[in-house]
Amino acid sequence: MSQDSKAWGGRFLEATDAFVEAYTASVAFDQRLYPFDIQGSIAHANMLASVGVLSDDERNRILSGLTRIHKEIADGEFVWAVSREDVHMNIESRLVEIIGDTGKKLHTGRSRNDQVATDMRLYLRHEIDVLLALERDLALAIVELAGRHTHTIMPGFTHLQAAQPITFGHHLLSWFEMLNRDRDRLEDCRRRLNVLPLGSAALAGTTFPVDRSMVAEELGFAAVSENSLDAVSDRDFIIEFCAVASMTMSHFSRWSEEMVLWMSQQFSFIDLPDRFCTGSSIMPQKKNPDVPELIRGKSARVTGSLVSLLTLMKGQPLAYNKDNQEDKEPLFDAVDTLRDTLTALNGLIPAIEPNVANMRQAASTGFTTATDLADYLVRVGIPFRDAHEVVGLTVAHAIKENKQLDELSLEELQQFCQLIDKSVFDVLTLEGSVAARNHFGATSPTQVEAAIARARQRLD
Amino acid sequence: MSQDSKAWGGRFLEATDAFVEAYTASVAFDQRLYPFDIQGSIAHANMLASVGVLSDDERNRILSGLTRIHKEIADGEFVWAVSREDVHMNIESRLVEIIGDTGKKLHTGRSRNDQVATDMRLYLRHEIDVLLALERDLALAIVELAGRHTHTIMPGFTHLQAAQPITFGHHLLSWFEMLNRDRDRLEDCRRRLNVLPLGSAALAGTTFPVDRSMVAEELGFAAVSENSLDAVSDRDFIIEFCAVASMTMSHFSRWSEEMVLWMSQQFSFIDLPDRFCTGSSIMPQKKNPDVPELIRGKSARVTGSLVSLLTLMKGQPLAYNKDNQEDKEPLFDAVDTLRDTLTALNGLIPAIEPNVANMRQAASTGFTTATDLADYLVRVGIPFRDAHEVVGLTVAHAIKENKQLDELSLEELQQFCQLIDKSVFDVLTLEGSVAARNHFGATSPTQVEAAIARARQRLD
Amino acid sequence: MSQDSKAWGGRFLEATDAFVEAYTASVAFDQRLYPFDIQGSIAHANMLASVGVLSDDERNRILSGLTRIHKEIADGEFVWAVSREDVHMNIESRLVEIIGDTGKKLHTGRSRNDQVATDMRLYLRHEIDVLLALERDLALAIVELAGRHTHTIMPGFTHLQAAQPITFGHHLLSWFEMLNRDRDRLEDCRRRLNVLPLGSAALAGTTFPVDRSMVAEELGFAAVSENSLDAVSDRDFIIEFCAVASMTMSHFSRWSEEMVLWMSQQFSFIDLPDRFCTGSSIMPQKKNPDVPELIRGKSARVTGSLVSLLTLMKGQPLAYNKDNQEDKEPLFDAVDTLRDTLTALNGLIPAIEPNVANMRQAASTGFTTATDLADYLVRVGIPFRDAHEVVGLTVAHAIKENKQLDELSLEELQQFCQLIDKSVFDVLTLEGSVAARNHFGATSPTQVEAAIARARQRLD
Amino acid sequence: MSQDSKAWGGRFLEATDAFVEAYTASVAFDQRLYPFDIQGSIAHANMLASVGVLSDDERNRILSGLTRIHKEIADGEFVWAVSREDVHMNIESRLVEIIGDTGKKLHTGRSRNDQVATDMRLYLRHEIDVLLALERDLALAIVELAGRHTHTIMPGFTHLQAAQPITFGHHLLSWFEMLNRDRDRLEDCRRRLNVLPLGSAALAGTTFPVDRSMVAEELGFAAVSENSLDAVSDRDFIIEFCAVASMTMSHFSRWSEEMVLWMSQQFSFIDLPDRFCTGSSIMPQKKNPDVPELIRGKSARVTGSLVSLLTLMKGQPLAYNKDNQEDKEPLFDAVDTLRDTLTALNGLIPAIEPNVANMRQAASTGFTTATDLADYLVRVGIPFRDAHEVVGLTVAHAIKENKQLDELSLEELQQFCQLIDKSVFDVLTLEGSVAARNHFGATSPTQVEAAIARARQRLD
Repeated sequence: MSQDSKAWGGRFLEATDAFVEAYTASVAFDQRLYPFDIQGSIAHANMLASVGVLSDDERNRILSGLTRIHKEIADGEFVWAVSREDVHMNIESRLVEIIGDTGKKLHTGRSRNDQVATDMRLYLRHEIDVLLALERDLALAIVELAGRHTHTIMPGFTHLQAAQPITFGHHLLSWFEMLNRDRDRLEDCRRRLNVLPLGSAALAGTTFPVDRSMVAEELGFAAVSENSLDAVSDRDFIIEFCAVASMTMSHFSRWSEEMVLWMSQQFSFIDLPDRFCTGSSIMPQKKNPDVPELIRGKSARVTGSLVSLLTLMKGQPLAYNKDNQEDKEPLFDAVDTLRDTLTALNGLIPAIEPNVANMRQAASTGFTTATDLADYLVRVGIPFRDAHEVVGLTVAHAIKENKQLDELSLEELQQFCQLIDKSVFDVLTLEGSVAARNHFGATSPTQVEAAIARARQRLD
Repeated sequence: MSQDSKAWGGRFLEATDAFVEAYTASVAFDQRLYPFDIQGSIAHANMLASVGVLSDDERNRILSGLTRIHKEIADGEFVWAVSREDVHMNIESRLVEIIGDTGKKLHTGRSRNDQVATDMRLYLRHEIDVLLALERDLALAIVELAGRHTHTIMPGFTHLQAAQPITFGHHLLSWFEMLNRDRDRLEDCRRRLNVLPLGSAALAGTTFPVDRSMVAEELGFAAVSENSLDAVSDRDFIIEFCAVASMTMSHFSRWSEEMVLWMSQQFSFIDLPDRFCTGSSIMPQKKNPDVPELIRGKSARVTGSLVSLLTLMKGQPLAYNKDNQEDKEPLFDAVDTLRDTLTALNGLIPAIEPNVANMRQAASTGFTTATDLADYLVRVGIPFRDAHEVVGLTVAHAIKENKQLDELSLEELQQFCQLIDKSVFDVLTLEGSVAARNHFGATSPTQVEAAIARARQRLD
Repeated sequence: MSQDSKAWGGRFLEATDAFVEAYTASVAFDQRLYPFDIQGSIAHANMLASVGVLSDDERNRILSGLTRIHKEIADGEFVWAVSREDVHMNIESRLVEIIGDTGKKLHTGRSRNDQVATDMRLYLRHEIDVLLALERDLALAIVELAGRHTHTIMPGFTHLQAAQPITFGHHLLSWFEMLNRDRDRLEDCRRRLNVLPLGSAALAGTTFPVDRSMVAEELGFAAVSENSLDAVSDRDFIIEFCAVASMTMSHFSRWSEEMVLWMSQQFSFIDLPDRFCTGSSIMPQKKNPDVPELIRGKSARVTGSLVSLLTLMKGQPLAYNKDNQEDKEPLFDAVDTLRDTLTALNGLIPAIEPNVANMRQAASTGFTTATDLADYLVRVGIPFRDAHEVVGLTVAHAIKENKQLDELSLEELQQFCQLIDKSVFDVLTLEGSVAARNHFGATSPTQVEAAIARARQRLD
Repeated sequence: MSQDSKAWGGRFLEATDAFVEAYTASVAFDQRLYPFDIQGSIAHANMLASVGVLSDDERNRILSGLTRIHKEIADGEFVWAVSREDVHMNIESRLVEIIGDTGKKLHTGRSRNDQVATDMRLYLRHEIDVLLALERDLALAIVELAGRHTHTIMPGFTHLQAAQPITFGHHLLSWFEMLNRDRDRLEDCRRRLNVLPLGSAALAGTTFPVDRSMVAEELGFAAVSENSLDAVSDRDFIIEFCAVASMTMSHFSRWSEEMVLWMSQQFSFIDLPDRFCTGSSIMPQKKNPDVPELIRGKSARVTGSLVSLLTLMKGQPLAYNKDNQEDKEPLFDAVDTLRDTLTALNGLIPAIEPNVANMRQAASTGFTTATDLADYLVRVGIPFRDAHEVVGLTVAHAIKENKQLDELSLEELQQFCQLIDKSVFDVLTLEGSVAARNHFGATSPTQVEAAIARARQRLD
């Protein structure tokens, strides 16, 4: 492959080694940037014409060529060449093929360093908008499902031990809260990345009288980068996105862990439709919750990408180094993984089928109303810490007798505290327990209904 | 050790194994939370009194006991007991020792799950405020140094190859931009964590008529958490902080990489005062840039902490699990590392002594004005891509002749392009090159001065 | 603090900044190396005397001084000074205090670079020996428990869905296999690290006629390092150890995940004695499996340490850089975490109390013998893939009828395949299913007994 | 897509959701396993025939079908179907298409769980053999280059400060030592993974009388797995490989860091041929060391993969879970990255062109023989620590006078120590300094030549 096809061959006496060419080329994975690369080039050409570096005729030919290239790529007719290294040079070389020497003027006043930084921001901004829409859909799906289960009682767990009765709607709203923070972080990430690097050129700016504000406006950037060295070497927005995506996927992994548990024969709290499950090649009876399991697994790869990126950047002096080329694949993988997982969850969540009876049955074991009994004792005058001790002894007795708390007789209860009377049995019911937690953020049906109403408002 | 000292001994028939007690206790590292634990308990007691769960007298005794405990701890007179597990139970047990049974009422309507979540948020909010102040100081120090070097010319590097002349002030402002994003992210993190979890109790809320808004107001929280399950199991704020800290430390690592390079005999761009360096136990001549090297190294530990936390959380079903206890040490270490590193940099940055002559000399080698020559050719009518090729051949010639570009004669230059005339030598000077990059964000002294003025405004 | 106390003050005009002194000092954490530092110094002094660099009298005074220092430290009487930077200079300075100028000769022919590398290898080799002994104990405990449950039937899970009946002994032996690989990796790590770096001095070796083999022999190293640059900059042995520890902790995390599941009310497969559990400050009934939960959590910190170390090293040019000082805390934390976790497991595993009835009951649901039915059909002549299909339809029928497979009548079964006769009911029993998997590595009691016998042999 | 094409459709009432099918399918990336999947199936079929589960005729038809499928895939004529999920079912389904119902018998006595574990081990063992050969080539290339530079003097660095003169050959041998440990670890990894899981079936073994030793022998495995649960859930070998690869890539990153430094105008220690460098799209003079920069960057992705895998596995209960499907892409990426990087280095290393004069010049600045002067003082009777102090003061004087040590007059030197005589100038030369470090592992040409001879032996 001749060095002539390179953007930089003049100074070189020897062609690139063929393996080196393949090893260092990025076109295999950066070609997905093409719509953004063309969009950026169009804005750049418009600006160059506006400041007189290009004539209007040159600008028009460039725009026409770029438009044709966009179509060629979209139609699958474009021939990508590894010898042209990357998406930028593939497009520019093709532009020169199509429109001739005028194409050689497009790169005036820019460098691939600021060009790729611009492409990446346009790309990621676009993807974040897609992700935010999917996350909003998912948030709504959770609220919908919660709305159908404001009175469905299940055990709340700590340490995977039954702790206190809660409602399934309340549990689902905890997922909503996680997701809401994820959306908030993603919006912050979008805001911070929405800054134009173009005009920074290689690292120092350019000698041409570029109008960066004009380019920023055409491309929808809210601001222009303040420092050219920083603009070409900054990959914060990629790392920040991967950090946000890691936290989001970690949430989805936690939900999935719960769904896998709930699908087990031992819990049997929910069922998932067959279309979200797969079977076994050997065990004919199996119905496996593959989708939540895979989500749980996929969260690991996003964390891996985040680590790659942090590790990648920490040792580099300014400004651009070739190491930076390694920023793309982890980002693309994180974007794809998050988007596909959101799509999967948007199908899965509305299809969850709770087994209400099983949930209720589970809530009625494990002494889940022990705290209610302690609180009862406090209300009749016993300091909480002593009340806790009394109930602890009561539970030990119940375990020995193989009874739940509400199966103990009043006499048995009174052995542990004379102040108990029959009103205690009201607080030992599941409904009583749940209803009594009736303040902002707590699990009573009333509060869950109010929380759902607030959640709907926050989504508008 | 008797189970009686435990908060939960009633139900247990057997004392905790001594090794298990030590293995599971957190008091060795969570005792640093004590001011926040006491602050939260005071607010909780005030609220319990306000809603009638405590009498005013009980409240007063509790406050008086807590104030005394605060003093005991601050004075180093408090005896921490591993058998009391954690900071919360150590303080509560001591409270009962001091004020008697009234102390047993403090835990009414709360759990350690919401208590520790509150402590951690109070702690981290406090530390973030300290960090933000240190970061602002550092940003100012960078601007000050940059202000003294708006005309100091050095080579800008890409691929660690001399690329184009820039000013040292411009280079420093790229550091300012990185730090500015770090500050922005840290403020977002602070905003998101400033939400009160107390009142969520174990996971479901409490049966007592708690006034959570009152507690939030007393503790300076901007909002009350929306969902009790989420509130006790959420560690996003810790992960987000460590992600922000990792990015910040990664920036400092990049600066440090540059300082270490610049301190080498080969670069000799800067010197650091002896007080920031150390020597060798064997080589008497050594003056090692230990502080930047160590900063570079310490960035790795914060990334490690981030990984620990993401890994820690991803597999947990709701709500609280004991795994969560492992959230503290990585966070504390990240906070300490970032704070100490900021302190070190606040000493180091103002003390940097640039070797202006060496920087300039380095800028004059490596053909750093080759882009200026190409831009010159564009202005006389050659398409950029062809101009690039022409200059590439010119550089190859210069290398063979062992000359820099401005050492070539006009005749030699004209061999490569007849359109060159003697005006070319203006653009080949370092000052000419730097001054010509004169637009928003670029390296010319005029632009750097304007950027410094803007930077000062942004710090106000 | 005077520079005079530094090992390297001569060339410096200015004292170290007090904060910098604290920031860069390692004595707070590297003092745990003292026995190995002294051991290495004794071997070094013996060698210097042997080759004539020290007189016998000087050597004897040095040894006597070092022995006294060892005792001072062990007795808690030694005063560690941050101004003396690290364990090495603290000990050397104290030696000079005790024995006078002869102490200044100890550092002849070595540097802190090779000294610390030697200390770290001695330290880690010692700890690995402790860990290997603990791992052997644990392996034995698993085999013991497995030996009591070669016939205890439980469901084997895939996707957390009941898959096929297995024996509890067989399940436990899978833990044994994991641990066995961990031991194997740890032994490889020990073998690779058991090489003496001392004699490499700063990076190039020394001008004194050192006898490195003599030192290696005295310190029990199997070989002498081949290259001095590598010897002072190599931290592979630390990374490798943390990789091995991460894998081991990841195994323990998986076991813990299982124990937490098995302890839940929903599974109720095992109970753990009270002494390995803790309670709740609010919920009097709780008995939480804190130890396995914490093990699960602690696995994350070791992975974090591994990441720190890999990130730490990857950007460093040779030879020693100050970044390397950051190798210690992650290693020490990984060693401590693994050792404490092994101690915890050595208490916990023998105390596991299986609920045999619950395990068996769980195995009898979820159609766990469906594969046996498919294999039965293969034996009467149906290709496996068709047999699988037939059983799939049979299970769908059973679900609809709310029956387990062995509750279907022969007629019902024959609806799906005419070739079935009443012998089918033998293969549908749990005992029949387990016994039929009777080959090397499979779950039948016979095989598990054989595996236990082999395991015992492998531990000898 | 009909459920009929699934291996497990019988029990399912509803087809898989199309998106879920794509989300959960692995065929896009696991198809690279096909040669190993077919190899394993052939061994399985041979064994089934040997124990009488298949007739010889059935076995022959299966082998013939599999051979044809192998050719179809190799020739690019095979149609991979996402609806058939993975490489295994794509091949099995095609087998049934080709040979009819006999193809349905192949899966007798195995599961995809043990099948994929077998494929992965065969694949990785094959790749490790390729990697070991490449690593040996690279080790040899380093030794060759070192052999040409046993007398080439350069500065050895610590803290990137010139420390002591060393030879370039000695420096290169430090790379050899790193690589040698990598080879050793890779061989250990190969040994540990070379165990046959097939026969473990889903998790419990199979009811068919499989002859696992026969299969192991045919496939070249050194042993048969001891426990079926472990065999299907173990991914240690993948994690261990990625840990080994991370350490290896971290070494290459360190070498690359050095090469990038050495290529800078400031160091100018080496040149790399044009074919290993690339240029700039804007700066015509640039010759960038892209290959070492990219290697440095690529080391980060392997660490990321390692983190993904450790995170992936740590939360999973036994035995197989769908999360495990995520083991493949990180492994494949790590294998490819390491293999390509080794290929790149095998081209690059022999092409390094040292600038001997520049190296020597750099060694003669920075007072690199200060240690030699201190050692000289020791030999005339001054304790090392005092000698160090004397030389420190001498260096401070030389800095003030802007001289190197060998440029000081004897009188100047004697100001600091009267015992110095003119013989001191022998030890202050570069050649004298290097030659004096003449013991095992040190930098003298004699020792480097001996080390090279040993290195060659170790490679045989």
